[in-house]
Amino acid sequence: MTNSKQAKVLALSGGVGGAKLALGLANIIDPQNLTVVVNTADDFEHLGLSISPDIDTLLYTLAGESNQQQGWGLKNETWQAMTMLNNFGGETWFQLGDRDIGTHLMRSQALKNGKSLSQVTELLKQGLGVKTTILPMSDQPVRTMVQTPSGPLSFQHYFVREQCQPQVTGFNFNGLDTAQAQPEFLQLLQDPNLGVVVICPSNPFVSVEPMLQLPNVKQLMKHTSAPVIAVSPIVAGLAIKGPAAKMMQELNMPTTALAVAQYYGDLLDGFIIDESDADQASAIAKLGIEVLVVPTIMKNLDDKIALSEQVMKFSQSLAVENLPCGL
Amino acid sequence: MTNSKQAKVLALSGGVGGAKLALGLANIIDPQNLTVVVNTADDFEHLGLSISPDIDTLLYTLAGESNQQQGWGLKNETWQAMTMLNNFGGETWFQLGDRDIGTHLMRSQALKNGKSLSQVTELLKQGLGVKTTILPMSDQPVRTMVQTPSGPLSFQHYFVREQCQPQVTGFNFNGLDTAQAQPEFLQLLQDPNLGVVVICPSNPFVSVEPMLQLPNVKQLMKHTSAPVIAVSPIVAGLAIKGPAAKMMQELNMPTTALAVAQYYGDLLDGFIIDESDADQASAIAKLGIEVLVVPTIMKNLDDKIALSEQVMKFSQSLAVENLPCGL
Repeated sequence: MTNSKQAKVLALSGGVGGAKLALGLANIIDPQNLTVVVNTADDFEHLGLSISPDIDTLLYTLAGESNQQQGWGLKNETWQAMTMLNNFGGETWFQLGDRDIGTHLMRSQALKNGKSLSQVTELLKQGLGVKTTILPMSDQPVRTMVQTPSGPLSFQHYFVREQCQPQVTGFNFNGLDTAQAQPEFLQLLQDPNLGVVVICPSNPFVSVEPMLQLPNVKQLMKHTSAPVIAVSPIVAGLAIKGPAAKMMQELNMPTTALAVAQYYGDLLDGFIIDESDADQASAIAKLGIEVLVVPTIMKNLDDKIALSEQVMKFSQSLAVENLPCGL
Repeated sequence: MTNSKQAKVLALSGGVGGAKLALGLANIIDPQNLTVVVNTADDFEHLGLSISPDIDTLLYTLAGESNQQQGWGLKNETWQAMTMLNNFGGETWFQLGDRDIGTHLMRSQALKNGKSLSQVTELLKQGLGVKTTILPMSDQPVRTMVQTPSGPLSFQHYFVREQCQPQVTGFNFNGLDTAQAQPEFLQLLQDPNLGVVVICPSNPFVSVEPMLQLPNVKQLMKHTSAPVIAVSPIVAGLAIKGPAAKMMQELNMPTTALAVAQYYGDLLDGFIIDESDADQASAIAKLGIEVLVVPTIMKNLDDKIALSEQVMKFSQSLAVENLPCGL
């Protein structure tokens, strides 16, 4: 690792929560030094369109095009295609805005024409004027299946159509047997200039886990000299967004930041928890993980930048500790 | 054939010009007695969507949803998906409005789920509140290829992308070797209650010809006791809309109503030409085709209804002539 100005930052992100921190990081790190690897196990084919919800959330958020009132999708969005589809009795449980459909038409067509998801993502990124490198976790399809007492559900059917109501008993990531991690992602994990790996405050089970399960990823994360830092997606026993806390209950885990730290285990060098969970700091430290206690709730851009600065400062302190002889 | 109140009307239509007359007919004929069979040789797959331009023009026109200022597409249309696609460098030569995309998403998905084009058209019809029966000419794909000196072009590439600029040397209708005419279309041609077959003022070469070339259609049209009447798409040497006149020039035909009558030949019992072409009436009559000279330009709904009433009156006079003993 060289000095912090040149150090490369790798962030692993799911959708909305991860994108918030990624936006903060993008505001303080030169684009050539920031790479966000995004979960694609939520991707699905719907109405003939290839939809990558987490990648799009990242793209729209970093482009300043996300709809903050709504909490998902694009701003200045309209719903004309969905209204027509609804008149025809079509499937409208997954709401696709007209602008968003433009993205999906582009992606679907480019994939059909033989481009990789990485190439398509690059093309979308350029169209949206995003400078940060955004990589799908894999160019091969991996698809989360949520196990429930009534059988498996594909992720978007669980998440959107069933609104996370079914009880979760486990997860399968179909396609992992043949998928490879995105090559630049693997290269970056081996890059001597890598300064930190940041696991964004995304769902550990369905957003982060699929990335970790890709061949070589966990091993390389354990062997990189760069510190691996996660930001807890659980604050005061709740998930800021999404079903992480509900899943933890159903999987018989305490809904605590500590339980998330235990879940990631020895993958982590550092763990950032919210002030409201300060009482868990010593238990997390006992796992051999350094803990930083700061405000982690990101309501506005200032919060996102402040947390990103804390992440970077924390990573630098951990990097110094990692140096031989403690220099 | 029974009396005119019960007689069934079969109209053959392409896009805009045919839809105008179909709308007039729909205003004066009970929905259960009017069937419009629509050309599908212009259909194509674009951006992964199954698009049936002529069927949609019929549906939108009969639903009162067509964009009359623009001359094609839907009213109250927006273009958000296309704007996004354009930002990404996607293919935007075929403009798809957001509402229109809703139609194509529905059709594409239903076809993928195994529904026939007839079933999908019925479903779209119901969603739009259209009462008239609208049938695709075939449930199997037939695709017009326009022959040009630089090679063949698929129809929409010729018509929209190249804006009818290339010289036409001929046409191929791919798929005709395996396609069947829509079964209800064939049944209606054999229905003793069929009162008239109306060939709408559509392009003879690329809108009407594919329907005529389907197995059994021409034969049944020749054998039906119902009169077959065409309305000339050529008025004063010009096509009201589209490349019909340009095609006739390039195919070394005079751009006249007479040449259209010659083209349809003995298929026709009657031919309706515009007042401005009255001087061609006797030459057409010499072909053994009855001629009606009336105003045929349809600028507004009144014009459409007036022409439709002329068509029906003409058909009744021809039907009487067709009766044995001239009764």
